[in-house]
Amino acid sequence: MSVFTLKEIQQKLELFQANWKHQEQELILLLKFSSYQKTLDFVNDVAKIAIAQNHHPSMQVDYCEITLKLTTHDSGALSQKDFTLAKAIDDLLLQRS
Amino acid sequence: MSVFTLKEIQQKLELFQANWKHQEQELILLLKFSSYQKTLDFVNDVAKIAIAQNHHPSMQVDYCEITLKLTTHDSGALSQKDFTLAKAIDDLLLQRS
Repeated sequence: MSVFTLKEIQQKLELFQANWKHQEQELILLLKFSSYQKTLDFVNDVAKIAIAQNHHPSMQVDYCEITLKLTTHDSGALSQKDFTLAKAIDDLLLQRS
Repeated sequence: MSVFTLKEIQQKLELFQANWKHQEQELILLLKFSSYQKTLDFVNDVAKIAIAQNHHPSMQVDYCEITLKLTTHDSGALSQKDFTLAKAIDDLLLQRS
């Protein structure tokens, strides 16, 4: 069970720039890129953040598209770790835009 | 529709070292790694092959696990491109083992 209420989660999502969705105890973000190389660069940048935070997103990589899914497996729900990771990824997107 | 019969696909799969599966017009391979860094290294090595072959697998990256799915979207089925890509990934795994 999440430590956050649905309202709290919604409020946190509204602070992000990117279009993060909350679905089935996960934060989900679909991203599209203009080339395979840019897709890979993003995977590697997200991975650096994941290593630094010791919290790892699920990444579905399909040519020029990535679907990120963040959750906390230990609790089977969203935790602050997921929002901290989402914020760093959100900032990364902002830097690139 | 695949250009290969089920028997031909089965025969091709038997030539691989890794445990590739044929399911719903895809070649699927689940791989586990001993660290996140090794997982990422593999993603990048597969990406280099994908760029060289101009044929890109779907990669589901979950911490120390990758699920590869190969298909040919143009035809909605398996083509020789998928087996050529699978062979190169199979050889990569063999080099690393």
